[in-house]
Amino acid sequence: MNTSGSAPTKPDTVPTEPEHVFDWLDTEADKRAAAGLVRRLRPRGSDAGELDLAGNDYLGLARDKRVAGAAAAAALRWGAGATGSRLVTGSTELHAELEHELARFCGAQAALVFSSGFAANLGAVTALTGAEAAIVTDRYIHASLIEGCRLSRADVAVVAHCDPAAVAHALATRRKRRALVVTDSVFSVDGDLAPLGELAATCREHGVALLVDDAHGLGVLGDGGRGAVHEAGLAGAPNVVTTVTLSKSLGAQGGAVLGPRRVIRHLVDTARSFIFDTALAPASAAAALAALGVLKAEPELPGRVCAAAGELSARLGAAGLSVTAPAAAVVSVSAPSPDEAVGWAARCAEHGVRVGCFRPPSVPDGVSRLRLTARADLTEADLDRAVSVITDTAPPAAR
Amino acid sequence: MNTSGSAPTKPDTVPTEPEHVFDWLDTEADKRAAAGLVRRLRPRGSDAGELDLAGNDYLGLARDKRVAGAAAAAALRWGAGATGSRLVTGSTELHAELEHELARFCGAQAALVFSSGFAANLGAVTALTGAEAAIVTDRYIHASLIEGCRLSRADVAVVAHCDPAAVAHALATRRKRRALVVTDSVFSVDGDLAPLGELAATCREHGVALLVDDAHGLGVLGDGGRGAVHEAGLAGAPNVVTTVTLSKSLGAQGGAVLGPRRVIRHLVDTARSFIFDTALAPASAAAALAALGVLKAEPELPGRVCAAAGELSARLGAAGLSVTAPAAAVVSVSAPSPDEAVGWAARCAEHGVRVGCFRPPSVPDGVSRLRLTARADLTEADLDRAVSVITDTAPPAAR
Ligand SMILES: Cc1ncc(COP(=O)(O)O)c(C=O)c1O
Ligand SMILES: Cc1ncc(COP(=O)(O)O)c(C=O)c1O
Repeated sequence: MNTSGSAPTKPDTVPTEPEHVFDWLDTEADKRAAAGLVRRLRPRGSDAGELDLAGNDYLGLARDKRVAGAAAAAALRWGAGATGSRLVTGSTELHAELEHELARFCGAQAALVFSSGFAANLGAVTALTGAEAAIVTDRYIHASLIEGCRLSRADVAVVAHCDPAAVAHALATRRKRRALVVTDSVFSVDGDLAPLGELAATCREHGVALLVDDAHGLGVLGDGGRGAVHEAGLAGAPNVVTTVTLSKSLGAQGGAVLGPRRVIRHLVDTARSFIFDTALAPASAAAALAALGVLKAEPELPGRVCAAAGELSARLGAAGLSVTAPAAAVVSVSAPSPDEAVGWAARCAEHGVRVGCFRPPSVPDGVSRLRLTARADLTEADLDRAVSVITDTAPPAAR
Repeated sequence: MNTSGSAPTKPDTVPTEPEHVFDWLDTEADKRAAAGLVRRLRPRGSDAGELDLAGNDYLGLARDKRVAGAAAAAALRWGAGATGSRLVTGSTELHAELEHELARFCGAQAALVFSSGFAANLGAVTALTGAEAAIVTDRYIHASLIEGCRLSRADVAVVAHCDPAAVAHALATRRKRRALVVTDSVFSVDGDLAPLGELAATCREHGVALLVDDAHGLGVLGDGGRGAVHEAGLAGAPNVVTTVTLSKSLGAQGGAVLGPRRVIRHLVDTARSFIFDTALAPASAAAALAALGVLKAEPELPGRVCAAAGELSARLGAAGLSVTAPAAAVVSVSAPSPDEAVGWAARCAEHGVRVGCFRPPSVPDGVSRLRLTARADLTEADLDRAVSVITDTAPPAAR
């Protein structure tokens, strides 16, 4: 149905020739080039020998033999793919075991595994809201949560970053009784932590639900890496739902929603990104399960990540760079412009240090930056090298 | 921002207690139970011994040693996860090779791999439209395309199923100059084929773009399994974009968009389900690549799938069931009601035959049915068994 109020276009007297139908993409590309916003994919080899400060493999488990070996064994035993939706042939005992272990580890009643963290966020936000609900979100939430809000048909109020009073005000003035407050725990770009305790208190006062995306908290924060929700004492709370990804600390692929059993049942019946999507590949489910086992066996890993991130931030700050104080593994360093961010990251790469380069639209505030991530297995020598390369290659205006 | 026009709710004098915040989910669950629409996950073992007519592993490649072995080797060599977005650390040489081979096989200029077919559809629809565009879609398109349309902010016109004249009418009366026509090739529930040649002609006449989701065509239709778009002579057309999934005929997980190079470049820069999502796991990328190799080496596989589907349909029809004529691997059998569909599928499972059971909201027209899928490796004995079990367990009202 046309939703625009303008008059119908007249049928083109000369319709666009097929080879010109996508000419507008070139115009858009030119605009991005002028703004320094063109991306290029740079496929890496399997053993690049670079110092990786860009990936989200916070515990260094993606290449751990126990984790990669579990993935390999599962592919051989269960097949390369799950062959169907979780509702048809895609649910294996492996998926069920992963769900059981994830829920137990994080202190939730139940869990549901999706094919990605992105899909888990789409499913959780849409299934728990709808046209009869209000959503209140922090303005810096992850893109997948934003997409969920857009799909939800709910009233969406976007409030200031990490501001429980703003959330309370939005809840008090909402027009729908049912409401969901949505936030990241650790924000993906700057690495700062949401005030989860205060947000939860606000939600309790207003009698509404809280959804926390703990993608960057699981494996890094909380007792033994149980995540930021657990650390805030919210695990198992009857009005709290958590989403996690299996693609960061757990070194695999996939995502999950954790929460009250009734929420998980509801998602099975109604979440479109669950129902209409092929199940997570057995290899990825097995890898995440093995990584969870490593995390349980080595509860000191999370502390190492945080220590490394703290040191990285302190030393770069001492060198005069504008750097965030990390709540978990992510450290962000401001760059003067998109072009200078790209140049800086490229110079780091030339010196063997891979850093993330974030520009619009991947940054919430329009400020380009380097995004650095710590890992549990970074050595003192790695940190020395990282700090000297990043400071030596910094554009003058970055200080 | 509140988008509803109604008055603000008065702050609750007695806010809902946290343990009652999700009570509404129980009410919804009761409604679904009364309508026969509750789903239960039934995790399967690794060697169920059942005859599988429910999965989408059309070529039987998910458990093929060459494919599962490639997945296992890739997990060991590249790690269990890709560790980041394709734009950061997630692009490996494996992803690049898969993109190159997919594009070459299907006859497209370029390809871009996503973490799922669902994500590929979200990315393609949103990045190629926007508020300044019109979308015209068949009313039975896959849910992931529908989600893409909802996210796109475009004017969306939903037209009758497989009706090029209705598409032409919607194009002629659209209010935005730029437009995208969206369709499945093989429709996922009923297995019928869109009139791709006529749709493409309509798009050419109106000077607009055509997006075809070939999830169920790749590996089954076209020369050597090159898909329905290739079969329709549209591979490489400058105004045609194809999406595929790696999770069906290729036995893995993931999805891809195929099309003109400028389209692929545009997706890299703008598709949010590409940018803000961890890359496909190396094991899944390697499995899809190996499956493509098998398909090239054994170009007779697709024909076998279609022959098996045709035989299944003919024999069930001859037994008096209301069955679709398959264009590819999918055969659909009408059931009298959601409850009777569930019971029928359960009786099949008791007799060792696993069939899909589709009920609202997974069916476009509200009619519950069994969904059967053929595989290249079904034997005559398998077909005999399938036909006798399905007919013997049919509810009386199904004939
Ligand atoms: C905060 C946050 N949520 C969700 C996601 C999506 O998870 P995935 O990449 O597993 O799809 C990401 C990263 O990609 C993220 O940073
Ligand atoms: C027509 C169609 N498109 C897209 C998808 C989504 O692909 P995937 O399951 O790989 O996410 C599916 C099935 O799941 C499908 O049937």
